[in-house]
Amino acid sequence: MSKAHSGWDWRKNRVNNPQLNSAGELIHLLTIEGLPKAMIHRILDTAESFMSLNEREVKSVPLLRGKSVFNVFFENSTRTRTTFEIAAKRLSADVVNLSVDSSSTKKGESLIDTVDNLAAMAADMFVIRHSESGAPTFIAQHLNKMFGGKINVINAGDGRHAHPTQGLLDMYTIRHYKKDFTKLRVAIVGDILHSRVARSDIHALTTLGCPEVRAVGPRTLLPSHLEGMGVKVFHDLKEGIRDADVIIMLRLQNERMKGALIPSSQEYYKHFGLTEEKLKYAAPDAIVMHPGPMNRGVEIDSAVADGPQSVILSQVTFGIAIRMAVMSILASSRAGAA
Amino acid sequence: MSKAHSGWDWRKNRVNNPQLNSAGELIHLLTIEGLPKAMIHRILDTAESFMSLNEREVKSVPLLRGKSVFNVFFENSTRTRTTFEIAAKRLSADVVNLSVDSSSTKKGESLIDTVDNLAAMAADMFVIRHSESGAPTFIAQHLNKMFGGKINVINAGDGRHAHPTQGLLDMYTIRHYKKDFTKLRVAIVGDILHSRVARSDIHALTTLGCPEVRAVGPRTLLPSHLEGMGVKVFHDLKEGIRDADVIIMLRLQNERMKGALIPSSQEYYKHFGLTEEKLKYAAPDAIVMHPGPMNRGVEIDSAVADGPQSVILSQVTFGIAIRMAVMSILASSRAGAA
Amino acid sequence: MSKAHSGWDWRKNRVNNPQLNSAGELIHLLTIEGLPKAMIHRILDTAESFMSLNEREVKSVPLLRGKSVFNVFFENSTRTRTTFEIAAKRLSADVVNLSVDSSSTKKGESLIDTVDNLAAMAADMFVIRHSESGAPTFIAQHLNKMFGGKINVINAGDGRHAHPTQGLLDMYTIRHYKKDFTKLRVAIVGDILHSRVARSDIHALTTLGCPEVRAVGPRTLLPSHLEGMGVKVFHDLKEGIRDADVIIMLRLQNERMKGALIPSSQEYYKHFGLTEEKLKYAAPDAIVMHPGPMNRGVEIDSAVADGPQSVILSQVTFGIAIRMAVMSILASSRAGAA
Repeated sequence: MSKAHSGWDWRKNRVNNPQLNSAGELIHLLTIEGLPKAMIHRILDTAESFMSLNEREVKSVPLLRGKSVFNVFFENSTRTRTTFEIAAKRLSADVVNLSVDSSSTKKGESLIDTVDNLAAMAADMFVIRHSESGAPTFIAQHLNKMFGGKINVINAGDGRHAHPTQGLLDMYTIRHYKKDFTKLRVAIVGDILHSRVARSDIHALTTLGCPEVRAVGPRTLLPSHLEGMGVKVFHDLKEGIRDADVIIMLRLQNERMKGALIPSSQEYYKHFGLTEEKLKYAAPDAIVMHPGPMNRGVEIDSAVADGPQSVILSQVTFGIAIRMAVMSILASSRAGAA
Repeated sequence: MSKAHSGWDWRKNRVNNPQLNSAGELIHLLTIEGLPKAMIHRILDTAESFMSLNEREVKSVPLLRGKSVFNVFFENSTRTRTTFEIAAKRLSADVVNLSVDSSSTKKGESLIDTVDNLAAMAADMFVIRHSESGAPTFIAQHLNKMFGGKINVINAGDGRHAHPTQGLLDMYTIRHYKKDFTKLRVAIVGDILHSRVARSDIHALTTLGCPEVRAVGPRTLLPSHLEGMGVKVFHDLKEGIRDADVIIMLRLQNERMKGALIPSSQEYYKHFGLTEEKLKYAAPDAIVMHPGPMNRGVEIDSAVADGPQSVILSQVTFGIAIRMAVMSILASSRAGAA
Repeated sequence: MSKAHSGWDWRKNRVNNPQLNSAGELIHLLTIEGLPKAMIHRILDTAESFMSLNEREVKSVPLLRGKSVFNVFFENSTRTRTTFEIAAKRLSADVVNLSVDSSSTKKGESLIDTVDNLAAMAADMFVIRHSESGAPTFIAQHLNKMFGGKINVINAGDGRHAHPTQGLLDMYTIRHYKKDFTKLRVAIVGDILHSRVARSDIHALTTLGCPEVRAVGPRTLLPSHLEGMGVKVFHDLKEGIRDADVIIMLRLQNERMKGALIPSSQEYYKHFGLTEEKLKYAAPDAIVMHPGPMNRGVEIDSAVADGPQSVILSQVTFGIAIRMAVMSILASSRAGAA
C-alpha cells in the first residue's frame, strides 16, 4: 500500500511548508509540524466555542453556507470521513463524499488530474485521506500554484506522515482535562513506528511546551531518532507510564499482530496492553486516551477503556469541534491568501 | 448471516421494552409489539399531515433542522436506506449514511464501540438495520443507560424480529383504503417464518382491533405458535384469501427458492403465487399489498401487481410520510425523556 | 454489459421523442438529437448566468429548494455523479445517490419497478446513468405515462447512445471561446464508434449550424453512416485536424487498447495521439477539448493536455453550470407539462 515503509524522516516537509500564506494565515492543515503555538491555541479556542453548539438543539451554523467541501478518500475510513462530513454539515457546507480507489484512479487517471477536475467544479475545500505520505501536501502545493491558496486542503491522514486533526483533538482533550501543558508527563504507548497519530502528537506536545514526552513500546515498533526529538524512550510499560499525567494508547494494526514485528497479539497484550493493574503506575489522576478504533484485549483492557480515567469518547466529541474549527479558520483565511 | 434461525419467540422483548419513557412517550421505535393503540393512531395521523406536504412544490419542513440523523446499515438495503434518507432530508435534518460492514467492524470494533463513537459525535437519532434480531433494542438500551433517552433509535429491520416502520406504513395503507380495522379480514401470504414484516403486521393488526388475521403459506414457511396468537392458519391460497378485504403478499427470499423449504420458485408460484384468477376468491374490493421488492412470477403475477386492486406503490408513498412522522414524534419527545 | 454492440442507428429515437411536452417545453433531457437550436441556446444562456454564481462566496441558490433529485447510477461513475450532485446541491435540492447494481436489481427487481418505487417516494427529478442505450428514454416514457411529465429525467449517459449534458457543455465551451458556430471547423478524434459523447456533439454541432464537422480515427473505431450525417471522415490525424478551430479528443477505453480493434495503446498513440507537433497542423488558435478522464500518453500528450490551447478543465467548470441550467429549466417547465 504505502511506499514509505523504510523509516520516517522527521525533517521532511519542514522546508517548503505550504500551509501558511505570506500573511501567516492557515490556508491548509497538512501537519502540525511547524504550526506556531499561537495558531494551535487559536484552533483549540475556536473548537471550544463550537463545543457549546454541539449541545444545542439546533447544531448548525451558517459559516460555510454555499461552500463545497469534498471529502476525497483514497484510502477507506468510514469513521474519519464521517467526522469531517458531520463537521462540514454543521457548518452548513455542501459536502460531497468520494471514494476514489473505486473510480477514476482505476481508469488510470492521475492524482493531480483527479484533483484538478474536482477543483474545476469550484471546490472550496478538500479533505484528503491517502495511503501515501505527503499526498495532501503535494495536492496543496499544486492547488497553491494553480489557484493561489483559494482552495483549502485538510490532511485527514496520509500514510505514516501525519494526522493533524487527530493531533489537535488530542491536544484539545489534554488541555481540557489538564489545563497546563508545561507541567505534564505524556506517555505515548504502542506502535509508534507506523503511527501518524504519534507523529502529530509529538509535534504538538513539543510546540505546546510539554516538558516530558515519552514513547513506550517494543524495539521493533519504535522509530530511531526519537531521542534526538527530545522524546524519552521506554521498552517497559510500567516504567514508561510511571507518574504519567496523560497516557495515549495507540491502535495495533492487525497486520502487525503476527509475523516479524511482534510475535502475537496475546504476547503484545501481556507486555504492552494497558490493564487496571498497570494503570496504577501512572499518576492517580492520569487520563487514558486512544484514537480509536480500539482493539480491546490487545492494546487496552476493557476495564480501562470503559473506566473512570478513560476520556476516549470525549476525544470523539472534541474531534467534531476541532474539525469545525479548522474548517472555519481555513475558510476565513482564504481571502488573505490572494 | 443471522444467528436467529431456530424459530422465533413472540414473547421476546415484551419485558424490558425500552421504547417508551416513563411518561409513556415514544423515545425509540423498535417494534410494534407493546405499542399502545393510541400511539399507533397518533403516528398514522401525523403521517397523514405529512402526506399533503409530499404533494407540494417545496416538500421540506424545518422540524429537524440542525439535528444529525445517522443511517447505520449493518446489512445492506439501498431501498430502505433511501426512504429514511428522504424522510430525514424533508425534515431538514443532516443525514449521514454509514454502511458499517465495510469499515470499522472489519477492524474488529464491537457494535457498542461503533455506536458509542457515533453517539459521541452528537448524534440525535440512529436508524439501524442489522441482520441480528434484537440489535436495535440492544443499542437503544445501551443509549438509554448512557444518555438517558436523549438519542433516539429507529429499527429499520432486524433479523427476523421486526420492521416496525413497514408495519406502520402497512397500517396506514389499510386505514387509508378500508377506514375501520374492526371489520376486516386480512390475509398475510407467503414466507411468514422468515418475515419481520409479517411479525410487525400481525402485532399492529391485533392492537388495532382487526378481528381476523390469517396466515397463508406452505407448512415449511409458517412458524408454530401462530394459532396461539389468534392468527388463523391456511395452507391453501384460495381458502386463505377467501372473502379477505386485505391481502399482504410477502417476498419470497431467493435463498428459499430452492432446497429444503420449497421445491422451486415455479412450484411456489403454482400454489401460492397470486394471480388474477385466484384474487377473485377475495372480497371484490380487496386491496393487494406487498412490501417490495417483488418477485414477479414467483409470489405475485404482474397482472395483479399492476392491476386495479394493487396499492403497492401507494405503500411506498405512505412509507415516506410514516418515517417522517416517526422521526418528528421521536424528536419532539426527547425533552420529556430526561 | 451493453447489448447494443452491433453498430448504432442515428435515426433511433427520432420518432417518439418524449423530452418535449406539447407546449414545446423541455421536460426531460435525453438526447441532443431533435432539440431545437433555440432550446440549446437557452440552456447555454442559462448556464452562463450560473457561471458567475460559481465564483461567488455563497454558491447556492434556492431554485430547487425542497425538491428531491435522485442520482440513479446503474453504471458506476463517481466523476459524473459528482457533477450532478454538486449542481443539484448548489440549487438547494435534496439529493439522494443510488448505485443500483449493488441493491435491488440484484434481488431481481426490474428497472421499471425500481423507478416506480423511487417515483412513489415523491421524486421530482431522476438523473439516470445506464449501460443500456435507451434506458433513460424508456424510463421517461414510462414516467410520462404514469405521472404526465411531472417527474423529469436527465440522461447522464446511456450505453453508446447519448450523453447530452456532456454535449451541451462542449457546446458551451466552443461558444465561450469561438463565439460563432457558423464559421468553425470542428474535428472529433478517436473512438467515435463507441462514444456517446461524439454522438451528442455531432448532433449539437449540426443543429447549431457548424459547417464542417470531422471524424478522425482508425477505420475500426469509426461507425458507418457518418458521411450520410454530413460528417467528413479522416483516417489520418494530421489531415483530420488541419486548420481545425476546435479539436475534441475522445477517451480510448481501456478495453479497446488491445485485441481486435486496435493493436496496442502505443500504436494508437503513434497514429492518433495528439502531440504538440501534430497540433501545429490545426489553426493557430485552435482549442483542444477532452471529456475526461484522459489517458495521457494514449490519446493525448501531457504537453498538449496541460498546454495553452487546452480548455479541458474549463469544460469541467462549465459542466456544473450546464447541469444547473438543465435542472432549473426542467424544474420550471414542469407546470406546463400537465
